[in-house]
Amino acid sequence: MTATSDRRATTSGAPVTSVDAPGEARVDVDELSSLLLGRWADLRAAARATAGEEAFWRVEGQPKEVHREHVLEQMHLLVGKQQVWRAFPERLGGANDPGGNLAGFEELVAADPSLQIKAGVQWGLFSSAILHLGLPEQHDRLLPGAMDLSVPGAFAMTETGHGSDVASIGTTATYDPQSEEFVLHTPFRGAWKDYLGNAAVHATAAVVFAQLVTKNVDHGVHAFYVPIRDPQGERDAHGALPFLPGVGGEDDGQKGGLNGIDNGRLHFDHVRVPRADLLARYGSVDADGTYESPIDSPGRRFFTMLGSLVQGRVSLDGAAVTASKLGLAIAVRYANERRQFTGASPTEEMVLLDYGTHKRRLIVPIAEAYAAHFAHDRLLDLFHSVFSGEEDTPEQREDLETTAAALKATSTRFALDTLQETREACGGAGFLTENRITSLHADMDVYATFEGDNTVLLQLVAKRLLKDYAAQFKGITPGRMARVVVERASDMALHRTPLKRAAQALADVGDVRRAAGHLRDAETQRELLTDRVESMVAEVAQALRPAQKADPETAANLFNAHQVELVEAARAHAELLRWEAFTQALSTIEDEGTREVLTTVRDLYGLSLVERHLDWYLLNGRLSTQRARTVTSYLDRLIDRLRPHAQDLVDAWGYGPEHLRAKIASGAEKQRQDEARDYYRRLRASGDEPLSEKSLRKAERATNGSSVATRH
Amino acid sequence: MTATSDRRATTSGAPVTSVDAPGEARVDVDELSSLLLGRWADLRAAARATAGEEAFWRVEGQPKEVHREHVLEQMHLLVGKQQVWRAFPERLGGANDPGGNLAGFEELVAADPSLQIKAGVQWGLFSSAILHLGLPEQHDRLLPGAMDLSVPGAFAMTETGHGSDVASIGTTATYDPQSEEFVLHTPFRGAWKDYLGNAAVHATAAVVFAQLVTKNVDHGVHAFYVPIRDPQGERDAHGALPFLPGVGGEDDGQKGGLNGIDNGRLHFDHVRVPRADLLARYGSVDADGTYESPIDSPGRRFFTMLGSLVQGRVSLDGAAVTASKLGLAIAVRYANERRQFTGASPTEEMVLLDYGTHKRRLIVPIAEAYAAHFAHDRLLDLFHSVFSGEEDTPEQREDLETTAAALKATSTRFALDTLQETREACGGAGFLTENRITSLHADMDVYATFEGDNTVLLQLVAKRLLKDYAAQFKGITPGRMARVVVERASDMALHRTPLKRAAQALADVGDVRRAAGHLRDAETQRELLTDRVESMVAEVAQALRPAQKADPETAANLFNAHQVELVEAARAHAELLRWEAFTQALSTIEDEGTREVLTTVRDLYGLSLVERHLDWYLLNGRLSTQRARTVTSYLDRLIDRLRPHAQDLVDAWGYGPEHLRAKIASGAEKQRQDEARDYYRRLRASGDEPLSEKSLRKAERATNGSSVATRH
Repeated sequence: MTATSDRRATTSGAPVTSVDAPGEARVDVDELSSLLLGRWADLRAAARATAGEEAFWRVEGQPKEVHREHVLEQMHLLVGKQQVWRAFPERLGGANDPGGNLAGFEELVAADPSLQIKAGVQWGLFSSAILHLGLPEQHDRLLPGAMDLSVPGAFAMTETGHGSDVASIGTTATYDPQSEEFVLHTPFRGAWKDYLGNAAVHATAAVVFAQLVTKNVDHGVHAFYVPIRDPQGERDAHGALPFLPGVGGEDDGQKGGLNGIDNGRLHFDHVRVPRADLLARYGSVDADGTYESPIDSPGRRFFTMLGSLVQGRVSLDGAAVTASKLGLAIAVRYANERRQFTGASPTEEMVLLDYGTHKRRLIVPIAEAYAAHFAHDRLLDLFHSVFSGEEDTPEQREDLETTAAALKATSTRFALDTLQETREACGGAGFLTENRITSLHADMDVYATFEGDNTVLLQLVAKRLLKDYAAQFKGITPGRMARVVVERASDMALHRTPLKRAAQALADVGDVRRAAGHLRDAETQRELLTDRVESMVAEVAQALRPAQKADPETAANLFNAHQVELVEAARAHAELLRWEAFTQALSTIEDEGTREVLTTVRDLYGLSLVERHLDWYLLNGRLSTQRARTVTSYLDRLIDRLRPHAQDLVDAWGYGPEHLRAKIASGAEKQRQDEARDYYRRLRASGDEPLSEKSLRKAERATNGSSVATRH
Repeated sequence: MTATSDRRATTSGAPVTSVDAPGEARVDVDELSSLLLGRWADLRAAARATAGEEAFWRVEGQPKEVHREHVLEQMHLLVGKQQVWRAFPERLGGANDPGGNLAGFEELVAADPSLQIKAGVQWGLFSSAILHLGLPEQHDRLLPGAMDLSVPGAFAMTETGHGSDVASIGTTATYDPQSEEFVLHTPFRGAWKDYLGNAAVHATAAVVFAQLVTKNVDHGVHAFYVPIRDPQGERDAHGALPFLPGVGGEDDGQKGGLNGIDNGRLHFDHVRVPRADLLARYGSVDADGTYESPIDSPGRRFFTMLGSLVQGRVSLDGAAVTASKLGLAIAVRYANERRQFTGASPTEEMVLLDYGTHKRRLIVPIAEAYAAHFAHDRLLDLFHSVFSGEEDTPEQREDLETTAAALKATSTRFALDTLQETREACGGAGFLTENRITSLHADMDVYATFEGDNTVLLQLVAKRLLKDYAAQFKGITPGRMARVVVERASDMALHRTPLKRAAQALADVGDVRRAAGHLRDAETQRELLTDRVESMVAEVAQALRPAQKADPETAANLFNAHQVELVEAARAHAELLRWEAFTQALSTIEDEGTREVLTTVRDLYGLSLVERHLDWYLLNGRLSTQRARTVTSYLDRLIDRLRPHAQDLVDAWGYGPEHLRAKIASGAEKQRQDEARDYYRRLRASGDEPLSEKSLRKAERATNGSSVATRH
């Protein structure tokens, strides 16, 4: 199925209620839809078609045991499609196409987020760890079973006691030169591996992360391939094979969502792992126990190993954007059909999307979803260029990791906010499972804290921003440095005194349109957003300066005291990335009407950020109060301008009824509304309509000549 | 169980990690706990003890069919406790104690929100409708079965096509004088009753709302008592009795939460209802079909009938506050025990609650929960004074309805935000059902849109604010009016020009402490919050003035164009109500240390509102940028000051492990942390600890005399 046919499926049989005003720009939905499929359009379209096949749908209301088996069966079906193998080497049946692989993988979220994440565990984490941390010999030996799902695997990194701080995990793998084996051991309860997909029931092997100790030296975290269940053993009541000797574990049980995945815990009691099963790309141990690594620095080695697994974050960014689109597509369709209360007309009820609050709560997130979409496209490019080897430099890797962290943290937050908002925008109907949104929210919930807790990720981003900031001053002469400081100080002073504000105010006096036009200018938006990131970073850097010469305790406390600002600066950076990606994408749109509408969408996104952070712009003198006052009213105008295009904008995402699977987005609501209106029209026409007491009393009052003030 | 013993249960066996600095104020947790039990302390404590009994707990992971039957059984157990009857007349076994009834009822949310809401359907809606809309004869005849649950009932008001706009429901009840019956009929699909608790399986009767038509006049919405299932019939596979002739329906199926309630749809095909079963307090029909009502105005009659059911909103406000407290109590306990990353110490990991972002994300909501608590106490007082008849005036009723709408809308929003934040603050553990928060979030989700959609409720509040604003000018002479307008305009101008800002800036120059001290002053906070509400209302009123003389269409469009500001003004009003309630409550605290800490909590709440709306204060010249700059840093100081009291502040809410029922809030985390630290301490002491490669390399570099800049 192509995007074009998807689009037709969305709108056919149920005409969209909103109609453009004549002469206005129109979105060419088919063209936009094609454009949005992006660089790997065919792969993405094929994966989307797969997600729309009933065999891959989530069956709501299944007990977790049934749901888990259902998803496992779907995974076997996916193996048949081989799309899931694209990232792997050609000699093993793959296509060495990491970007195309992710483009398709992300689409699975529309089928069932449990399927996406369980597939992510198998092919994105377990198999990828073998691929990226293993040697070619290990690929040949271990990947085929992982790829074809004959060996379902767990990715045993996180421990109950250590989530984000992987470097501090407690599991140890101590080399024994006598037997040429590692002894894998869990020394205490907090070091149990936890939250591992596949671990509760299905996994027969795991990639286990442990502190590698040899010759009494701890070389830090390394990965080991470890069989954990006996494939020849007898299954228990839950369908699980027996653990191998020394291995134990338990089921994480019911979760807030993603119950199609059997998350569980694992622990190891002196389990022996052959030397050959240390995934040895970044560190190996020879027979007598001598450790060797192509990367000397233990710190850099650790981050390189972890960095090779960045694709999880990249794909969560994409999946989160998709889930947001699904929620918005459902809510916008419903808001375009659902009527409630009479507004301007005495008999016709108003559609929800014409209400001031409703327009705002849905159209602003549409703009953000577009921005997040284009930013994700750029991230996918960057990911592909590094992992395909097209441009695999340390700088590109660092950019990729920073960008993935920034976007994953913001888009998963956005998905949760948007799904909550869309669910509420659908009222009681939004709460019914048949309308999908609550299930999506429940499943997406954990995206905010897994594959890197969002708060921790944003700190990583902030540290990078600080590093880049400091690098500007590297090798600078003391004299030049002094000048920079003075310039910056006077710049700050200018912003903070009423001078700049006064200038803006003068320029805008009596001319609200000029102020608004100013805001619409792309360069102004860029300047406002860029300036905010740079100023925040500079300000935090300034505040953290004493840390350089302080003792570690004081430095840590100082850093902690500025954690909130650091995270906020990182968020601002992510917002700017999205805005830039959106702006860049505009130039690729050929159809003029589409480009015009999308430019308004971009403006809406940019201005919504300025409105969101208006206090900052005012506090720091970047906007005069006169100019700031126009932000909200201008935003309202943009929303009104986009109102007629709302349905087109969500249709262009290319998700049909087979993806939305929400009764209220199936045309059922329109049918009900039409039936009710027909009923009342017929009743009025028939002459049998009862008179209303209200209008009778009004008539009575008129007859008695009594004024409206008469009380009854 | 008393609150005191609850409190001991919470902290016994697991000492709180935070300790006050010597000499600082301390919270007397027991005293505060007693104070928070409020006016109906014994009833509340008894209900809380009930909620803590295992028989009333939610069993997680039950399929909806099992969960529904489980909750029904729990309801029968509740009947035995008779607390649920307190609102009913004494002659029927009640206590005519509406306030005490709700105080207890709200606590059920800690057992299982499904139980709370299903109990609310039976006794708060179905039975209450009979009580408030029926005549004494109808009470005697219909209430006993409703009260003792021999007649499980549905409250059939909402229709698929009409949620918030009850006046427009499509179901009709047309009087037939021949048989002295009403003919109850559903004319189209949109008029099916929907989302009705008890309707899918358990209800054998319903209070059905329909447009009452007699003698060809539609007298608007009235309520009818209607048997819907045959108690003598045979149960189907789902345990449901057969529908009576003419009645049909279907199951709403799985929902995003509250799956212990069997929500369903009902429809009626010319079902005959005896004249005696019109609940006739506010409107009756005599044998020949003549309609009579004690309230002449159909509009006022409608709002009086609906207003008599306000207790649902009141109790949701209380339940939402309780759910927020449960989430915070779990997350704060965990954040006080969970350690991650080393901070200031090289070996000891930091507890989460010491991190800058974590402190803020949990301690600010603690302050808001206190504010919401005290505001709810006031609402309960107001509710009791009206419904017990102590002070049942139209003005009091109007205040009650406005306050209930304002607080329900803000506390249900707060509960969802807080449960989301606390779930994320607990990382992956927060996503496990065994840690409770996700289930609470799923259940509370619908609180935002049922018993009045929050957006609609906030508009009701805004309309009242506009009405009150207009009333100020009632009977005013044109001359005086002109002066008021001029004064207001010059006042506005003063705020908007740099004059007032300049004055503040001058006052604060070089004295950050003075600016902060100013913000701490209660009168300043009150002025800032009050001024914001009043100014927003005045501004919207001004903008809506042309609507008075405009045609209905223009007026409706104008109103809609300002809907966002109206809702925002209503929210500001709710925030002020909470702040005032909190401030008033401070004076009732006898223990000095407790009062001092709670005053800081109140300041934190007040200042967090100012920070949240800082853009407004800046835009409208209420704060100079100099003064506004101190808001966040002062807030940070308040958070730091409250950090050592965080555990006490959540403990004082009086929810023990039997209410929290979260493994991570059971002391298990502390045990794990202690075990891990003991392990490492022993390892270091034993001399068997492997050397780390990192420190070896550092030592190597030092020996080689190479600088830190040397790359490995």
